[in-house]
Amino acid sequence: MSQDFFELHQPVLEKALQAARERGYWSPFAESPSPRNYGETAAQDGQAAFDALLGKAFPLVVDGAEGSVSGEVSPFGFPLNIRYPRISPDRLVAAAQTAGESWRRAGPRAWVGVSLEILTRLNRRSFEMAQAVQHTTGQGFMMAFQAGGPHAQDRGLEAVTYAWQEMSRIPDVAIWEKPQGKNEPIKMEKRFTIVPRGVALVIGCSTFPTWNGYPGLFASLATGNTVIVKPHPSAILPLALTVLVAREVLAEAGFDPNVVQLAAHEAGDDTAQQLALNPAVKLIDFTGSSANGNWLEQNARQAQVYTEKAGVNQVIIDSAADIKGVARNLAFSLALYSGQMCTAPQNIYVPRDGIDTAEGRLSFDEVAAAIASAVEKLSGDAARAVELTGAIQNEATAQRIDAARALGLPVLADSRVLEHPQFAQARVRTPLVLRADADDARIFQEWFGPISFVVATDSTAHSVKLARDTARAHGALSLSAYTTDDDVAAQVQDAAEQAGVALSLNLTGAVFVNQTAAFSDFHGTGANPAANAALSDSAFVANRFRVVQTRRHV
Amino acid sequence: MSQDFFELHQPVLEKALQAARERGYWSPFAESPSPRNYGETAAQDGQAAFDALLGKAFPLVVDGAEGSVSGEVSPFGFPLNIRYPRISPDRLVAAAQTAGESWRRAGPRAWVGVSLEILTRLNRRSFEMAQAVQHTTGQGFMMAFQAGGPHAQDRGLEAVTYAWQEMSRIPDVAIWEKPQGKNEPIKMEKRFTIVPRGVALVIGCSTFPTWNGYPGLFASLATGNTVIVKPHPSAILPLALTVLVAREVLAEAGFDPNVVQLAAHEAGDDTAQQLALNPAVKLIDFTGSSANGNWLEQNARQAQVYTEKAGVNQVIIDSAADIKGVARNLAFSLALYSGQMCTAPQNIYVPRDGIDTAEGRLSFDEVAAAIASAVEKLSGDAARAVELTGAIQNEATAQRIDAARALGLPVLADSRVLEHPQFAQARVRTPLVLRADADDARIFQEWFGPISFVVATDSTAHSVKLARDTARAHGALSLSAYTTDDDVAAQVQDAAEQAGVALSLNLTGAVFVNQTAAFSDFHGTGANPAANAALSDSAFVANRFRVVQTRRHV
Repeated sequence: MSQDFFELHQPVLEKALQAARERGYWSPFAESPSPRNYGETAAQDGQAAFDALLGKAFPLVVDGAEGSVSGEVSPFGFPLNIRYPRISPDRLVAAAQTAGESWRRAGPRAWVGVSLEILTRLNRRSFEMAQAVQHTTGQGFMMAFQAGGPHAQDRGLEAVTYAWQEMSRIPDVAIWEKPQGKNEPIKMEKRFTIVPRGVALVIGCSTFPTWNGYPGLFASLATGNTVIVKPHPSAILPLALTVLVAREVLAEAGFDPNVVQLAAHEAGDDTAQQLALNPAVKLIDFTGSSANGNWLEQNARQAQVYTEKAGVNQVIIDSAADIKGVARNLAFSLALYSGQMCTAPQNIYVPRDGIDTAEGRLSFDEVAAAIASAVEKLSGDAARAVELTGAIQNEATAQRIDAARALGLPVLADSRVLEHPQFAQARVRTPLVLRADADDARIFQEWFGPISFVVATDSTAHSVKLARDTARAHGALSLSAYTTDDDVAAQVQDAAEQAGVALSLNLTGAVFVNQTAAFSDFHGTGANPAANAALSDSAFVANRFRVVQTRRHV
Repeated sequence: MSQDFFELHQPVLEKALQAARERGYWSPFAESPSPRNYGETAAQDGQAAFDALLGKAFPLVVDGAEGSVSGEVSPFGFPLNIRYPRISPDRLVAAAQTAGESWRRAGPRAWVGVSLEILTRLNRRSFEMAQAVQHTTGQGFMMAFQAGGPHAQDRGLEAVTYAWQEMSRIPDVAIWEKPQGKNEPIKMEKRFTIVPRGVALVIGCSTFPTWNGYPGLFASLATGNTVIVKPHPSAILPLALTVLVAREVLAEAGFDPNVVQLAAHEAGDDTAQQLALNPAVKLIDFTGSSANGNWLEQNARQAQVYTEKAGVNQVIIDSAADIKGVARNLAFSLALYSGQMCTAPQNIYVPRDGIDTAEGRLSFDEVAAAIASAVEKLSGDAARAVELTGAIQNEATAQRIDAARALGLPVLADSRVLEHPQFAQARVRTPLVLRADADDARIFQEWFGPISFVVATDSTAHSVKLARDTARAHGALSLSAYTTDDDVAAQVQDAAEQAGVALSLNLTGAVFVNQTAAFSDFHGTGANPAANAALSDSAFVANRFRVVQTRRHV
């Protein structure tokens, strides 16, 4: 290859390995879009690059395209009209297998070096990516920049780091020398070769195409597999840009660019199923609905399947030192990207006879009112609110708000349409907060979008049991609890461990339950139905490669 | 617990971690049954302990037994008449779940400490175990001692070692401190708890109940799961002894002995299926037929399933420096435990126009005759041969020899019945070696037992292609090749890497393709249909536990 990318990026890799061990704060990709980090003209260059893509054929050079795929519409109200090459699933898989031969032989240093170079170049295009993410997912600009750019890159790097950690512990060669009493020892040389599983498939989602897509993409690539990236039909651009950058780096390094391919397709066809059931596809990473994720787990039996699916995220309020801080923090979590994060809270459990706070006893209604009022306050100023809420990714989510309203539950904070000062056609909604009782079975399912329930329970013990049993039965990616009582905290932690869900305790400041930090927080656990793997740990990478040994006497 | 088992065994664990990294020779459990290793009276004590078990109720103290299970018959010709408690699958699972609560909370040090103590005590009973293994599997005494005792213990320790390696890299607690420019950093404490998956099931086989059973058993136990051990109905005793020792250690350490339970059952009932489909069973380790293994993979969808199944092991003979050494080594591999090892060679590919050797060109027939004659020689002296071949585990395997003979292929070495000098009723057979052509589809399936084929191919290139394609399609646990040509060696290695099968090159001495050494050789790769995992690597342990984190501001 033209340059040893592994050597170039080894210092960052070393730091990443240390960060993954210590799990403190660390990020190599600046999360602030400040010109100090990205250059004076980065913002306008990124905007210009995005604008230049609109209405044109996407600049991906491929063989065997049969027409093109189009149809993305910004949730902020305009069509992108970008045309992506359409390639049949069989052709994609065949090209992946061909490209895989020399990629397999290149070995771990090349796989990891190329992966790190791709991430580095993606970082440089973070402003362009921010526009792409904003106008496919509906995220506000700042989230689109951070979650779609540097934070996604962090998660990609984290997966590469774990992959390297697991691969590098296998020695290239070992001498095995077995004593034979007075005789000469038996001496053998053993060579260990890391081999990939084959073709990997990444199935992207419409809300966090890069953040949720990069861990699987880079875990598979860094372990020597070839990767077919199948974006959600309504959020193709962020992954198309990613594939473009990957192919550019692969070609420079002397590899067949088909090591990474884009499988753009239109909604409602069977591209995903055809790819997922192809016998050569050995790894699948999926983020999306439980129905599709479960289908993959049940049917793509030839592949190792990693899924992140739906869940019911919950909050337990037992007691509070600072109820205003609680309400403010929760309101932010509910409003952020209009509850379209897989970690956004939905069910907030409060004992029906109220809670103790630093300012004395508060009734259930007072707690519910505090939360509702904090939500109303956050969405009071439309111009500021839209930066937080972004837009609703798709019409089905907007309609779900109406369906939730139609449950007939008391409305604590109603969802309103907000005018976006810049994009008049943007699909913006404020959070809907309803009051519910714990015996209402309808709330124990995912209500994806800006929909939450403040739920009256018999007691905190009841809340804890509900949270545990619901996470076990329906899955959960986050659990939040507020208590000033150490015994209650210990009980909630035990319930979280039984249900296999990450717990955040007493968040009242600038950290929100929706957010996780690469290298420190595991995203998902793999221990409840919301996900069968965590981002990222050894289990996420260890099955993506195998070891083949050759031994001989020396 | 009465004693800190972790601390007690930490020095061995440290050495084991180093051995797994370096993959040189290392074993903490002496493989020689010498009195120097095990004590002057160990052999007779073991025999006496075994004899004392015969004809009685097995001394396992359990609740809820409904009658007993019996029926083991030594392949050396006598019934064991040992009665094991019969417990219903539902009751076993319920007891495992109850026992799992305090076991889960005990944490990695306790899990690993208890596991290491169990292995240590099993080592002390290696002579008793040797008798148990010999008289259930049919192995000769030396193999029963080594593979059933110290080598199985090594593989168990290896699994514990990998489990500890993966768990210990997760810090108990981390401080996350995110800079906020001129403001105070955000500071959080994050606690990480290792949680087990739930109830684990180990399904034992009839040929290597401990060697194949211990990796899964100890990998699951050391990661905090409770384990139900379901032996093959014809080889219960070795695993019953194992469970007995495990329960003794658990009770001493203050845990519910039901953390490890025995599911003895009679042949032909549905105990395995009932256990495997129980929703609480989250991990399954299986060794046995492809039909049963594939059934588990397809149906036990709630569990992580690790299988070792059937395969077709192959030998490629391209050229040889020492054809006698080749023949002698191969003959030993064919005769050892009558080909009832999952790694025993079956198809031996030789170009039909012969091979080059140090003594000049040898025709196909000469090569075939050399192998057959080495086989005949090994089985010439019955008293010595029976120690090598042991007995045939079951009648179906003995009948398979007749079925192979009925293929009508030319016989190179015929299988004979041998009289065992000590056990007149022992089911002993010498290896059957047949000549076949490469286009005979009947040989590309597993012929389990002392059955092999010397196969005429068009060329070494043809042999390599056959070996690769057969391993890919039907699975293989071993591949052996003989060549004096480095280019051919490289081609075979590439084929082995494509087919995901471990390769042994030019074995002519005291190492045999059937054998693998813990901490150095991976057994299986997980990369072809013979097994979906390797013994042992990170992938074998990393999915047996999950991490649940709790974070809060500090």
